[in-house]
Amino acid sequence: MILLRCLYRGRSYTGVLQGGQIHVVEGDPAHPQPGRLLASLEQVRLLPPSQPSKILAVGRNYADHAAEFDHLPPAEPLLFLKPPSALIGPDDPIHLPAFSERVDHEAELALVIGRRCRHVSPEQALSCVLGYTCANDVTARDLQRGDGQWTRGKGFDTFCPLGPWLVTDLDPAQLQVMGRVNGELRQHGHVRDLVFSVGQLIAYAAAVMTLEPGDVLLTGTPAGVGPLQPGDLVEVEIPQIGVLRNPVLTAVPRPAIE
Amino acid sequence: MILLRCLYRGRSYTGVLQGGQIHVVEGDPAHPQPGRLLASLEQVRLLPPSQPSKILAVGRNYADHAAEFDHLPPAEPLLFLKPPSALIGPDDPIHLPAFSERVDHEAELALVIGRRCRHVSPEQALSCVLGYTCANDVTARDLQRGDGQWTRGKGFDTFCPLGPWLVTDLDPAQLQVMGRVNGELRQHGHVRDLVFSVGQLIAYAAAVMTLEPGDVLLTGTPAGVGPLQPGDLVEVEIPQIGVLRNPVLTAVPRPAIE
Repeated sequence: MILLRCLYRGRSYTGVLQGGQIHVVEGDPAHPQPGRLLASLEQVRLLPPSQPSKILAVGRNYADHAAEFDHLPPAEPLLFLKPPSALIGPDDPIHLPAFSERVDHEAELALVIGRRCRHVSPEQALSCVLGYTCANDVTARDLQRGDGQWTRGKGFDTFCPLGPWLVTDLDPAQLQVMGRVNGELRQHGHVRDLVFSVGQLIAYAAAVMTLEPGDVLLTGTPAGVGPLQPGDLVEVEIPQIGVLRNPVLTAVPRPAIE
Repeated sequence: MILLRCLYRGRSYTGVLQGGQIHVVEGDPAHPQPGRLLASLEQVRLLPPSQPSKILAVGRNYADHAAEFDHLPPAEPLLFLKPPSALIGPDDPIHLPAFSERVDHEAELALVIGRRCRHVSPEQALSCVLGYTCANDVTARDLQRGDGQWTRGKGFDTFCPLGPWLVTDLDPAQLQVMGRVNGELRQHGHVRDLVFSVGQLIAYAAAVMTLEPGDVLLTGTPAGVGPLQPGDLVEVEIPQIGVLRNPVLTAVPRPAIE
């Protein structure tokens, strides 16, 4: 099943995509069912497919990516948080902040939690997943290195593109992740090569904190990360899911108090 | 004005406390007004005074605390995130995880954002604050050091006590922060001694990410942090606000999938 969030005639909906048509979701959010027809895919604007209470991510979870920055894979998952304010959806622009010299793409598989869980085993963990999607763990590499903590380097507004939708009932170990810039393939990883599997990551996080329905976990990026420039178009593709496409712009700081 | 969240007869409310009585909040959340009488303070259970989309905190923001772990104060605010799942309210127990050898209290002044803001100046920043409260940035010191990223060491469930309520219209620079364990004073700092002021912290964070109404920012802890033991009672007091009191227990991991 393909689950999405979208904006249609000024209102947001959670929908099921079937044959190019979006049906409004009905029933238990953990067991969504397609209800009435809303619109065709072309008539809506896609939104990030979840509204998480937190976004977890992991560093250096592919050996080839760890090696490209002269790191060994960590002995335990290297967890960090991205703020929900960083989320954007398909086609939304990534804004490059003026005070970073290098902002990289990081193509990743992400999952969305469907059932609140705590202290689950790696074997049980996949049963807590609602679905899988594409993510870009956009990273201001210079600030990440200089700051020590990664909160700022990975936490700017627009630094967490997610989508285009969730696909349920996948075996994550069978998936591949590709990252392209202006159509050129830069990253290509197999999820079976993760240092820590999807189940292990969920179990590790859930030994620390309660995972809530809607929470997002990014599973790490393969080798080939590189800088983005204004005017670029960056894509994350997972063939059994779809393509997450975002243009890249220079940020124009606009002071705002609402 | 004193703003609180509470549970009364199985429902949660946002209230204004006046003379020991709680009135339900009415009107614009950014300009709350006391409405009908709900109950007296003794009749309710206090909840964390905000439901944030994110919790920001800063490391080493008092020179004396930085020095006690042989650090210099940072050249820029050292931002990190705590997950909302870590929040607890007054009198809720802090659970010490089995796989940490040392969990410390960190008494802090926290603020809650009242108006969405981005790219504000330090001078404008205080106008975005709804109110101030007490926080405890509970930290598994061994995991914080070993992990590099502080997400796990500062992110366990129950590691962000907040409360007892928000007080509006305070000058944060006039406040003092005290931390006590079993009645013994362990920490005593003056907010005027912050390395980066409250306005500077908000401006620094808002240059990176949009701050949403309800978001929480912890402003750093003064010297005197130390380990907690099961059975301890830990208190954070800010005299013009009140006392945040939490018992300390050993965590009993209970696997749960809901």
